[in-house]
Amino acid sequence: MIHAGIVGATGYAGSELVRLLLSHPEAEVTAISSVSFEGKAISEVYPAYFNLCDMVCETAGQVVDKCDVVFAALPHGLSQELAKACDEKGKAFIDLGADFRLDSEEEYQKWYGGTYQDKELHEKAVYGLPELFRKDILGKRVIANPGCYTTGAPLALAPAVANGLIELTGIIIDSKSGVTGAGRGLSQGTHYPDLNEGLHAYKVASHRHTPEIEQTLSRLSGQKVHVTFVPHLLPVNRGILSTCYGRLKPDVTKAQVRKAYEDFYQDEYFVRLLPDGMNADIHNIKYSNFCDISLHIDTRCGNLIAISAIDNMVKGAAGQAIQNMNLIFGLEEASGLALVPPAF
Amino acid sequence: MIHAGIVGATGYAGSELVRLLLSHPEAEVTAISSVSFEGKAISEVYPAYFNLCDMVCETAGQVVDKCDVVFAALPHGLSQELAKACDEKGKAFIDLGADFRLDSEEEYQKWYGGTYQDKELHEKAVYGLPELFRKDILGKRVIANPGCYTTGAPLALAPAVANGLIELTGIIIDSKSGVTGAGRGLSQGTHYPDLNEGLHAYKVASHRHTPEIEQTLSRLSGQKVHVTFVPHLLPVNRGILSTCYGRLKPDVTKAQVRKAYEDFYQDEYFVRLLPDGMNADIHNIKYSNFCDISLHIDTRCGNLIAISAIDNMVKGAAGQAIQNMNLIFGLEEASGLALVPPAF
Amino acid sequence: MIHAGIVGATGYAGSELVRLLLSHPEAEVTAISSVSFEGKAISEVYPAYFNLCDMVCETAGQVVDKCDVVFAALPHGLSQELAKACDEKGKAFIDLGADFRLDSEEEYQKWYGGTYQDKELHEKAVYGLPELFRKDILGKRVIANPGCYTTGAPLALAPAVANGLIELTGIIIDSKSGVTGAGRGLSQGTHYPDLNEGLHAYKVASHRHTPEIEQTLSRLSGQKVHVTFVPHLLPVNRGILSTCYGRLKPDVTKAQVRKAYEDFYQDEYFVRLLPDGMNADIHNIKYSNFCDISLHIDTRCGNLIAISAIDNMVKGAAGQAIQNMNLIFGLEEASGLALVPPAF
Amino acid sequence: MIHAGIVGATGYAGSELVRLLLSHPEAEVTAISSVSFEGKAISEVYPAYFNLCDMVCETAGQVVDKCDVVFAALPHGLSQELAKACDEKGKAFIDLGADFRLDSEEEYQKWYGGTYQDKELHEKAVYGLPELFRKDILGKRVIANPGCYTTGAPLALAPAVANGLIELTGIIIDSKSGVTGAGRGLSQGTHYPDLNEGLHAYKVASHRHTPEIEQTLSRLSGQKVHVTFVPHLLPVNRGILSTCYGRLKPDVTKAQVRKAYEDFYQDEYFVRLLPDGMNADIHNIKYSNFCDISLHIDTRCGNLIAISAIDNMVKGAAGQAIQNMNLIFGLEEASGLALVPPAF
Repeated sequence: MIHAGIVGATGYAGSELVRLLLSHPEAEVTAISSVSFEGKAISEVYPAYFNLCDMVCETAGQVVDKCDVVFAALPHGLSQELAKACDEKGKAFIDLGADFRLDSEEEYQKWYGGTYQDKELHEKAVYGLPELFRKDILGKRVIANPGCYTTGAPLALAPAVANGLIELTGIIIDSKSGVTGAGRGLSQGTHYPDLNEGLHAYKVASHRHTPEIEQTLSRLSGQKVHVTFVPHLLPVNRGILSTCYGRLKPDVTKAQVRKAYEDFYQDEYFVRLLPDGMNADIHNIKYSNFCDISLHIDTRCGNLIAISAIDNMVKGAAGQAIQNMNLIFGLEEASGLALVPPAF
Repeated sequence: MIHAGIVGATGYAGSELVRLLLSHPEAEVTAISSVSFEGKAISEVYPAYFNLCDMVCETAGQVVDKCDVVFAALPHGLSQELAKACDEKGKAFIDLGADFRLDSEEEYQKWYGGTYQDKELHEKAVYGLPELFRKDILGKRVIANPGCYTTGAPLALAPAVANGLIELTGIIIDSKSGVTGAGRGLSQGTHYPDLNEGLHAYKVASHRHTPEIEQTLSRLSGQKVHVTFVPHLLPVNRGILSTCYGRLKPDVTKAQVRKAYEDFYQDEYFVRLLPDGMNADIHNIKYSNFCDISLHIDTRCGNLIAISAIDNMVKGAAGQAIQNMNLIFGLEEASGLALVPPAF
Repeated sequence: MIHAGIVGATGYAGSELVRLLLSHPEAEVTAISSVSFEGKAISEVYPAYFNLCDMVCETAGQVVDKCDVVFAALPHGLSQELAKACDEKGKAFIDLGADFRLDSEEEYQKWYGGTYQDKELHEKAVYGLPELFRKDILGKRVIANPGCYTTGAPLALAPAVANGLIELTGIIIDSKSGVTGAGRGLSQGTHYPDLNEGLHAYKVASHRHTPEIEQTLSRLSGQKVHVTFVPHLLPVNRGILSTCYGRLKPDVTKAQVRKAYEDFYQDEYFVRLLPDGMNADIHNIKYSNFCDISLHIDTRCGNLIAISAIDNMVKGAAGQAIQNMNLIFGLEEASGLALVPPAF
Repeated sequence: MIHAGIVGATGYAGSELVRLLLSHPEAEVTAISSVSFEGKAISEVYPAYFNLCDMVCETAGQVVDKCDVVFAALPHGLSQELAKACDEKGKAFIDLGADFRLDSEEEYQKWYGGTYQDKELHEKAVYGLPELFRKDILGKRVIANPGCYTTGAPLALAPAVANGLIELTGIIIDSKSGVTGAGRGLSQGTHYPDLNEGLHAYKVASHRHTPEIEQTLSRLSGQKVHVTFVPHLLPVNRGILSTCYGRLKPDVTKAQVRKAYEDFYQDEYFVRLLPDGMNADIHNIKYSNFCDISLHIDTRCGNLIAISAIDNMVKGAAGQAIQNMNLIFGLEEASGLALVPPAF
């Protein structure tokens, strides 16, 4: 049994890790921490866990000491020190924050405003999007778990980009996210009456996940890729739908596209490439680790439209983190994650 | 491994059985049927199950032949014949419909308009609300699984009624149900724009679950109990909150009430009696088999207010049916049902 | 043209007053104030008003000076001083807060913890529920506008109580309110993901609107009435449904009840007594000043069930305040309030 | 007073016309018809209108006879005959359906499958998007009221297209619509539990509004424009957000774009060009005839992102139809349409 710890357990991503790990057959939550709720039981914060996990929040240091693997769900800038402590004590570290996601410190500075405090540690870190970079993850101990937008959109585009089916300029990603993506912290924009029955874009073409998406697509294509990324805030709890647009290269056929996607994802349990005629819907992947993808061609304009749906808290956060844990600990990759999405 | 079959698998209760059984460690879905979708895969009806359960709908007869236990999720009036077929072939039968719930054929005629076709079979049947009538269920093969309203409200009132803490006249049950309780069938009232941002009562003091609630409370008290039951339709997918009002008998104290509930439910895994200060909320039991209960006393008016929250599709339908299956097959009662409700 | 001012214009009730007064043919918003947003335009706070009302928030004192009538939408305890200032300057004052609602200072102290600073002023104040106390309102200049719960539930019960059709003990009011009732202030309970797909009771039998409801029912009956009042928080923006239960006196018939309600409300434009077979639904009164009432009899248990639906921000706050303004300024009572509720 | 009639009054667009016309100072609903509900009062279909409009549905012929202007809210293919009848009797005809929207019969055949029965009549018809084609509308008697998607997206792109600021190839329109856009008719996809907490695209790059959008942009630019149009179905009642992407021509600056939009819409009451920093949100235009537009530039990729928000039932249907009526009858264009959107 793997002893798992969660630093920042009372945020949404942290609490979702608690939930998923409670059902994991080969790992258990051994310790949790929270700055805001130290000394309190997590079930006081989330009454859904009453009687099921009444574990009390300790300090981050206690979590590191007691566990084999530490998940961190912290605001950016706070993970580097913790990663170092884990590294020194030989604990695996899986970061749900942004501190280790970008290879380029320059990009990190530009978008997040911080610096890389320990460059050696950053070199040890690996970007944990298993479907695209599984080989790199195996054997590593510091994992940068991707962000929510940066999981679904790249998965929708990866086969097209990796196989040179679309132009690398002019890619547009129009994403719509459920509210949990904004976290547990209060804000006017997530106050129920202000959000309900509403929909708006935010951080248009300036969201911090942009360079992360571009990094992934650049790796896959071998060329520097820029994308226009526009996120929207949806009045639903969970789920991100990313509608991704790319210009098909001349003479690329619908059949070629479909074949490329089928080949690319044929061994991927968590990617469900939908048959023609079905549309990816966040309704169908809620509370699961699946990424549904539907493919559409606009033959009139020569565009590929690839649409992905993920649960931002599972495949976009806690589920993928556990998938990474499974990978680096040599477990079945889907262990604890064979979650059937509810039909409603 | 128990071979389970579902007749009426494409309705909401049937499809929820599919979902839960897919994760059951000791049972598997062996066959499913549907009149409307015979020959079609259930994943065509519920794309959430794509790749996870692409089982094709057969006939009810095929389900009976292939399975050890048959769950029926059918409109009332259609279960009796099926129950008989199961009985004759030695298959266990768990009915999510109403045909076997009422002891009194007279009441059944009055509220449902039908008759008991095979009285012997009805005598073999038992009402499957394990927390209240577990002993009666063990060893039985024909189980009448309770309705959704008829699970949560009686659980909220049972300790008070069984211990004589409240008057047996004047009980009021004000229930609020999520929309899945109305089923998959289309109606103007469940058309999204007509229901969204709305709330109304329906079948006021005339809902068919009334005699079933009364039957349970009468058994517990040993006296004929009548209740005023008013259901409301909520714009949420899942969950029933039942706010139950009873007049406290003279000199009954808050401490006595609490003690009675604690004793009554101390060994019940699926009932979570909330500490004082917490309010039962359907938010906290979604997708789980738990029934949360909070207790409140109006000392100014001398009323007990007991509030229960259940997921109508799980504890109010499919989950409880599996709980009954576990019981009659000698499994751990919570096998496959240790579902942690998501915190959001 | 009446010059209307709003103190506390950036709260929900205040901003709804702005919206309604913008369409009033005989009144106009002349000045608004807000402690939190002084110097800012209300359209910065509520972008819905962009270009339509870009009026800048001033101080409360400025509002009093510039206007004929001052609406106050403030936390309790803050209205008394303002009322005095209005009284001294001869301005009409309509208070959407609780400071002048209760006749009994003792009750006010018990439920709100404050005292009556100026008893003479309190004697000048009148409770502004026009359908029940219109005669008292005419000619007055200090109006206590009722709370949201305290409008819908009393209107549902008034004809029965006033005509002695139900027992005065044992009345139960089970109310369900949309989230705007909790105001614009942030709280975890109104954070979108924590509330969405949820439902729970709160302040069970201890909500501050209890004595106000009791005061109204006591006036109507001439006897001290106590009620059990349980409010619930609904995941919708607007609307309160109050399901009110009372024990019918012996031999009272359904026809008598209906007749009493028809007579009581025959001249009331804003009360829509629904025909038998229809159920009051908050869906049907949104954004309007109507109170829909449906009547139901549980003949098995001898209970009257009267259900009312109002928009908590209109008939439960800003609309009723304007109705009071119309009354005391001698306008048509429905002036500016003939709002057709949208069908969806 | 203009006598207005509505054919197809019990559909969503028809019933919204009823609501808006009830508050129109210079027009009144004189007759309504409905095939499904002939002989029934509209308030039986929409209880929101109880007591306010209990008008009974007659036949289409009766509506034509009694009214000065006939609004038709019918499935496509059914308006042509009605238009002819109106034309012959000298009644103005405003069609909320698609039959008269496309200039090209070829396109109509391709996308709708029908033919133009009376070419002369089609030549008399004019496309009623006042902000773009006001001059053409004045003096006409057969108005093709635009579709919902075809109002918001063109308004977002018009100034850029008309002024040659963006390339005419590669335009992408990603729209998200509330459910009322799908109408009152029942379907599995609009059944509450199947839609709630979901989001998906539909008719990807194949929606019938595509040629209509292209026709408008082609008129504005003087060149044939093709667009990739992807609509999505949102779990909200009302509102369409259209996120429109176009490649800026070389050297076009942000300031130029803003200036072009300000000039283009400076006299348009119903278009609210939002200041930089604000994002168009369907939350802020609900129940109003406004079209909010926010402008964003992705300087990294050279894209203009123009986002519009409209209420699909008002500016996208009934409100715009009344705006057209006002125009052709010589009334103030905003008469009856100065609706303040609620802040929540």
